[in-house]
Amino acid sequence: MAMKRVANSAISALASSSTVFTRQAHASSGSKKIVGVFYKADEYASKNPNFLGCTENALGIRDWLESQGHQYIVTDDKEGPNCGCQVVDVGSFLAKFIDIHFCGFVAELEKHLPDTHVLISTPFHPAYVTAERIKKAKNLQLLLTAGIGSDHIDLSAAATAGLTVAEVTGSNVVSVAEDELMRILILLRNFLPGYHQIINGEWNVAGVSYRAYDLEGKTVGTVGCGRIGRLLLQRLKPFNCNLLYHDRLKMDPELEKQIGATFVEDVDRMLPKCDVIVINMPLTDKTRGMFDKNRIAKLKKGVMIVNNARGAIMDTQAVVDACSSGHIGGYSGDVWNPQPAPKDHPWRYMPNHAMTPHVSGTTIDAQLRYAAGTKDMLERYFKGQDFPEQNYIVKAGELAPQYR
Amino acid sequence: MAMKRVANSAISALASSSTVFTRQAHASSGSKKIVGVFYKADEYASKNPNFLGCTENALGIRDWLESQGHQYIVTDDKEGPNCGCQVVDVGSFLAKFIDIHFCGFVAELEKHLPDTHVLISTPFHPAYVTAERIKKAKNLQLLLTAGIGSDHIDLSAAATAGLTVAEVTGSNVVSVAEDELMRILILLRNFLPGYHQIINGEWNVAGVSYRAYDLEGKTVGTVGCGRIGRLLLQRLKPFNCNLLYHDRLKMDPELEKQIGATFVEDVDRMLPKCDVIVINMPLTDKTRGMFDKNRIAKLKKGVMIVNNARGAIMDTQAVVDACSSGHIGGYSGDVWNPQPAPKDHPWRYMPNHAMTPHVSGTTIDAQLRYAAGTKDMLERYFKGQDFPEQNYIVKAGELAPQYR
Repeated sequence: MAMKRVANSAISALASSSTVFTRQAHASSGSKKIVGVFYKADEYASKNPNFLGCTENALGIRDWLESQGHQYIVTDDKEGPNCGCQVVDVGSFLAKFIDIHFCGFVAELEKHLPDTHVLISTPFHPAYVTAERIKKAKNLQLLLTAGIGSDHIDLSAAATAGLTVAEVTGSNVVSVAEDELMRILILLRNFLPGYHQIINGEWNVAGVSYRAYDLEGKTVGTVGCGRIGRLLLQRLKPFNCNLLYHDRLKMDPELEKQIGATFVEDVDRMLPKCDVIVINMPLTDKTRGMFDKNRIAKLKKGVMIVNNARGAIMDTQAVVDACSSGHIGGYSGDVWNPQPAPKDHPWRYMPNHAMTPHVSGTTIDAQLRYAAGTKDMLERYFKGQDFPEQNYIVKAGELAPQYR
Repeated sequence: MAMKRVANSAISALASSSTVFTRQAHASSGSKKIVGVFYKADEYASKNPNFLGCTENALGIRDWLESQGHQYIVTDDKEGPNCGCQVVDVGSFLAKFIDIHFCGFVAELEKHLPDTHVLISTPFHPAYVTAERIKKAKNLQLLLTAGIGSDHIDLSAAATAGLTVAEVTGSNVVSVAEDELMRILILLRNFLPGYHQIINGEWNVAGVSYRAYDLEGKTVGTVGCGRIGRLLLQRLKPFNCNLLYHDRLKMDPELEKQIGATFVEDVDRMLPKCDVIVINMPLTDKTRGMFDKNRIAKLKKGVMIVNNARGAIMDTQAVVDACSSGHIGGYSGDVWNPQPAPKDHPWRYMPNHAMTPHVSGTTIDAQLRYAAGTKDMLERYFKGQDFPEQNYIVKAGELAPQYR
């Protein structure tokens, strides 16, 4: 299917935007149909006035959108093409069906796709935008990720279809970097066995301290060193560690000196030196399954791994096996393959893990930032203006460098 | 009982050290009886060659002491005067008896007191050295704390009796400061509810994120700003918080500027401003019960409190009540009143806590440091040399400033 690329900077775009051959990057005038897919909050929705990231509060932009004559559909019902069971607890129930996409119902998202102009999704409750869905969504122009990380979208298909994909770059980088540092400390300092003792009525200092370590003096390496990686390294600096980083490019020497980390060009030379490895790369064809059995076998025995990037960067079973043997001394992260993690996902039950659902980038502070960033991009879209350049993931048929 | 103070610097001390009236600070020549009270490790003792802090590995100084002709008794059996039940699980069982000191047995420690010259204890499994025990220990000259925090010793009684009390100053300050930062992040970012979801087969992002916050931008105040407080503030600096500290004295202006924290002279003016309060003072008559119902009522609603200092600085029930009402949004620490915490200690069961046993200062790294520091002081004691000045808690009848 040959697609015509439409330049994003062309503000005076074609009047018709409903053909798959020439989807324009900016809005034509008139009412738009905007669909948002967020996680449901149920009883939590009303507990915090700043809790904007859930379906109930819908980024806090409903009144604004509707006052301008746009239609705003919000749902958490995202599985498809034919699944969309009418259940309240979508998280745990749909988990069972995440790989079985044909259960007789039609997801709310699926129903709205054909005439949606803008789809807002999040990495925390990812609406998987496949090539097939893009084909169905004949009016679709813009895919906004409220947050960071757009690998739930088939970016090549989006590029080919002439769609624009954009994130709220920077909205949760601080949140994720803080969360990574928390997880490093939780693993190294062996926090969870002590916590379990307390809630179980026990007290056994030795049972914690025989494998508790300070962070000071340890070698910490980040695989990938974009904004999150750099914020992490900056926060690690006062801990007096040996800091290493691997990325496609070396940092600016001035910044590198200020951060105090050493560049290692060959990732496989860096990894075996690390007491702690932090994953800070997007999921791409190159990084999928990167930490497989062979690569893990070459890591230091007892290594701690923190992965808030994407679950599929790891070979699921290889991580379980290495945690069970003790080769990996601790594994923590908030990303899973798939999400939501099924009830029987083995990472829930492996030893020495400190896992959570996908939450690090959706603190209240981050929600306020990505809600504001999404509103800003919608406003620019309605006015036919460009977005901040760093927000683009797919623009005029081109993928952003980190996804190539 | 009038005691004669013996100057610690008098290296050529009196020959006899066995009278309670003139206990000398340095060793007379000849074999000494040294008693160490540590936590028992059982099956964990052999799991890590650097696990020195337990009874089984006894700071790694047994061979060295015995090769010099000294006697080295090590036990975890510390309750008394007449309690020392022959139980394996001392931690949880003795907990019930911690305030009932007469159950018909004689603790191992108690048996050895009369002819002990040096008692080594730790804050993690504190051997309470009361005035009565000091009276019984007629040969006692030196009380060494393997770690930091000597409030398990009746320091006034020790001073009056002419004993020397010394800690391995600095041995675990980094460990505790790191641990405090970990606990701040665990509370603010609402880590534990997400972890519980995962191990219970659940997935509910909203149930975590409705009350998860970044550390960035929050106001963090430390009550007490000695070495641990300063190390914490240094580690907090890259998080871009509003940092406050209260202590008896303002820091050196150059250091204060470098750390980036603001001094508040009146603690009750600082506390209500804080999103996060960290306790970094020793337990003294002035700080005991400092956080009572009235003071907690004046804190910001939802405040997070981290206390790795001493449990008795808090009013136990006031903390439970405020956690239950939500006035305290999260409480984390590793110190309890008493220790080990009884099975029915209410902090084990209050909402939004992140408690552990007393572990923050006994990482493997800290154990290596305090084992080395204890050995160094014993060596100096045998040679009749002074200790590093900052190690003294009681010297020549005087208490160190932080305990006055």
